[in-house]
Amino acid sequence: MDKLFNPDGIAVVGASANPAKAGFVAIRNMREKEYPGKVFPINPNEKDILGYPCHGSLKDIKENVDLVVLIMPSRLIYDVMDDLDQRMESKGDVKFIVCAAADYAETKTGEGIARQKRLMKTAEKYHIRVIGPNCIGVIDNRSRVDTTFVDTGVPFSTFGAPTGITFISQSGALASAVLMEGAGRVVPVLYNKFISIGNMADIDFVDLINYLETDGTTKVIGIYMEGYKDGQKLAETLKRASLKKPIVILKVGRSALGANAANSHTGSMAGSDQVYDAVFKQCGVIRVDTIDELIDTMQAFDQMPLPAGGNTFLLTQAGGPGIYCTDAICAADSLTMPSVSEKTREKLTASQLPMANICHPEGYADITASASVKNHVDGLRIVLEDENVDAAVLVTVVPTFLPQEALAEGFVALDHETPAEKKKPVYYCVMAGAYTTKARKIMERSGLCTFNTPEKAVKAAGNLCKYAMFRKRHGEEKAHG
Amino acid sequence: MDKLFNPDGIAVVGASANPAKAGFVAIRNMREKEYPGKVFPINPNEKDILGYPCHGSLKDIKENVDLVVLIMPSRLIYDVMDDLDQRMESKGDVKFIVCAAADYAETKTGEGIARQKRLMKTAEKYHIRVIGPNCIGVIDNRSRVDTTFVDTGVPFSTFGAPTGITFISQSGALASAVLMEGAGRVVPVLYNKFISIGNMADIDFVDLINYLETDGTTKVIGIYMEGYKDGQKLAETLKRASLKKPIVILKVGRSALGANAANSHTGSMAGSDQVYDAVFKQCGVIRVDTIDELIDTMQAFDQMPLPAGGNTFLLTQAGGPGIYCTDAICAADSLTMPSVSEKTREKLTASQLPMANICHPEGYADITASASVKNHVDGLRIVLEDENVDAAVLVTVVPTFLPQEALAEGFVALDHETPAEKKKPVYYCVMAGAYTTKARKIMERSGLCTFNTPEKAVKAAGNLCKYAMFRKRHGEEKAHG
Repeated sequence: MDKLFNPDGIAVVGASANPAKAGFVAIRNMREKEYPGKVFPINPNEKDILGYPCHGSLKDIKENVDLVVLIMPSRLIYDVMDDLDQRMESKGDVKFIVCAAADYAETKTGEGIARQKRLMKTAEKYHIRVIGPNCIGVIDNRSRVDTTFVDTGVPFSTFGAPTGITFISQSGALASAVLMEGAGRVVPVLYNKFISIGNMADIDFVDLINYLETDGTTKVIGIYMEGYKDGQKLAETLKRASLKKPIVILKVGRSALGANAANSHTGSMAGSDQVYDAVFKQCGVIRVDTIDELIDTMQAFDQMPLPAGGNTFLLTQAGGPGIYCTDAICAADSLTMPSVSEKTREKLTASQLPMANICHPEGYADITASASVKNHVDGLRIVLEDENVDAAVLVTVVPTFLPQEALAEGFVALDHETPAEKKKPVYYCVMAGAYTTKARKIMERSGLCTFNTPEKAVKAAGNLCKYAMFRKRHGEEKAHG
Repeated sequence: MDKLFNPDGIAVVGASANPAKAGFVAIRNMREKEYPGKVFPINPNEKDILGYPCHGSLKDIKENVDLVVLIMPSRLIYDVMDDLDQRMESKGDVKFIVCAAADYAETKTGEGIARQKRLMKTAEKYHIRVIGPNCIGVIDNRSRVDTTFVDTGVPFSTFGAPTGITFISQSGALASAVLMEGAGRVVPVLYNKFISIGNMADIDFVDLINYLETDGTTKVIGIYMEGYKDGQKLAETLKRASLKKPIVILKVGRSALGANAANSHTGSMAGSDQVYDAVFKQCGVIRVDTIDELIDTMQAFDQMPLPAGGNTFLLTQAGGPGIYCTDAICAADSLTMPSVSEKTREKLTASQLPMANICHPEGYADITASASVKNHVDGLRIVLEDENVDAAVLVTVVPTFLPQEALAEGFVALDHETPAEKKKPVYYCVMAGAYTTKARKIMERSGLCTFNTPEKAVKAAGNLCKYAMFRKRHGEEKAHG
């Protein structure tokens, strides 16, 4: 699949010079991301689009084309495929098609099914692999390919470095939402790869997971799933792959009505939710409930080491949010609040103001709103050094009179001074709103994970722990034969 | 309590000219909000702060002072109270104290308890009512009083009009978080009144609810609660008040450890969570689990009529998010997806594109990503006109090629054309991120409720329905009894 994500030559059928059209935005996205390869807009009525010279049809491109993006009205599929047949007879270069447009088999009409058939006829004849149809396309932010027509509303230049997060979505709209929601975060999330797979006429979940399992730039795989026909094949693939990389899935169709809606949408049989749930658990898949939890969890897996266990210390400078967060930790199956050693308790007490509440309850410290930057950083350092502590949640409502940049830089310095092999996950909950954006930006740009509410931090913490336990169990199974 | 929220003269003890100090921010907040009344900063070392002339002590102010704000270090309480005693003997004008600083009885030290005692001695002697100590202060955005020292990071001029939302918090940090999170919303939330009550040395939940029950500008009461000593008094008050106005409570201490932390924090006995849960249900109180749900629900109560029942139609232009939202509706106790009449179904079908999925399942319509502004607005109008429909959730991932401003204006026009008595709640879920900020701003500024994820929209819908059912039941009890 390398040529899908790193093609030599991309032809865009349906490219448009009209900024209100999807066929323009796809070109603009590549231009904005400074895609260094060749792009060939197909549009007989334009000379060039954003500096890329136009061609009249697929047949007219003299140079190599690895990837064809179809973004024209689907009724034109017959002509376009005839052109592609001719091209393949003479040049035989195309290896992938990304068919973005809708109105294919998912409509369940004779016409839609016939269109998809026509698309696949050429694909199968010439061994061209297909993504879609009825999808929003593919992104690789390392090679800077972007065939989507999604406008996130955020300039590309403000995004962070490419992450290790690869996301696959069975719904184009959900994929758009994940892109837009990611773009709207404090530091916009630059996904590693991003694949909207639509109808899965050819390439499907299993193909992609097989590929991503060994893809060097993918650290965590996220999936939005409505359903998959071959349950056993999916389960085998998930189990094998999740022993190498965490897989996070937002699977809908939990309710009978939701399953019914899924069937109407992509023709997927959502299947029994309990079966999916059981299979996911068995396979070490982390199932999430919301888009927020999906993105938070993917980011946490991407940026942090796995915890050795569920002992999660809660350090807070704010009593109310601390109690709120304690409730959240107690509600998480996989997490517990640990007792620290007497020595840690003494060091912690000595490092804090007299009115700090240390370890009432166990695994909890409220260092109060008067805590300085040094109180915060020293407290966190001491907690993380305790061998009973596997991870920490830090909750702060940065008081108006505490310099938030200095606090953020203190946390970053603490992270940098810790040797990689001694690092433990820390979930920084920096509440809330726009006031702390500066602090969160400093922290996120240095690779720390921040959250705006305790429950989000705790959800991510619980998910990392669940996966760590799966890996641990499997390691033990292996050791015992 | 009118003079607390609309005082004639405010003295601020501990006012500072140093922008890094709480005693400066409180003054700055009132200056920024253009508080029209008199503010007297007490600071013997400054001539004026932000244009308000300084005084050396409480005794020196010649003019009337209704409200004294204490924001100085708590060890100075003895001197300040002596000054206040002298003032009361000669002028007798002060009616309220807001004691913002911490380090009083909540520390459970002899010193802290003594300080609070000293504060209350003067208060009781002269019948001055006290908010706090250990709180962040009081806001009234109609009279433009703001004694808090919270910097939300968002310029006041970008806030919307004052809402009908009054919020009371037992934790200052949680109160800050609610202020900051509200300020960070698409259109910043301007709370009607905002009261951080801290230790409740005098004024407590019951006093405030009693007052707010008949306060003309309060439409919904939100509360963050750790615990309250007199359960029966609280229950009676909640039950009576919630028959007039919705009361939304985020009550922490759900877990045993959380209750333990609450006890260490404000000395509150959180009490059995099951008891609180039962009492809240009985009293028609809407209990929420997160800060997001708290703000969303308060906004929904403030802006929308109550639904006649739980029949909630889901109109979407995006299949995946539609299924995701269907799951959320099915998971909400109080909501169901209604069957619409044959006539509605026909009208709906006629108003949409041929590939639209109308009523598979019942109560659901996916009008597809190709839907125009007119398709959206007509679809919603037709759905809302059906008598089986009590409310609607609209889920859209505005496609790049649909003009979002026109869509937003279409929804606003639909809302305006509907007579008040025929209005039903509509939860607009506009996914997601920064791309749709423009649309959401247009809608929110016109009084529509928008959300960025389906589960948030559905949580609010479920909460409005629960409360509507409580009111309905009570109405029936009355009719029968």
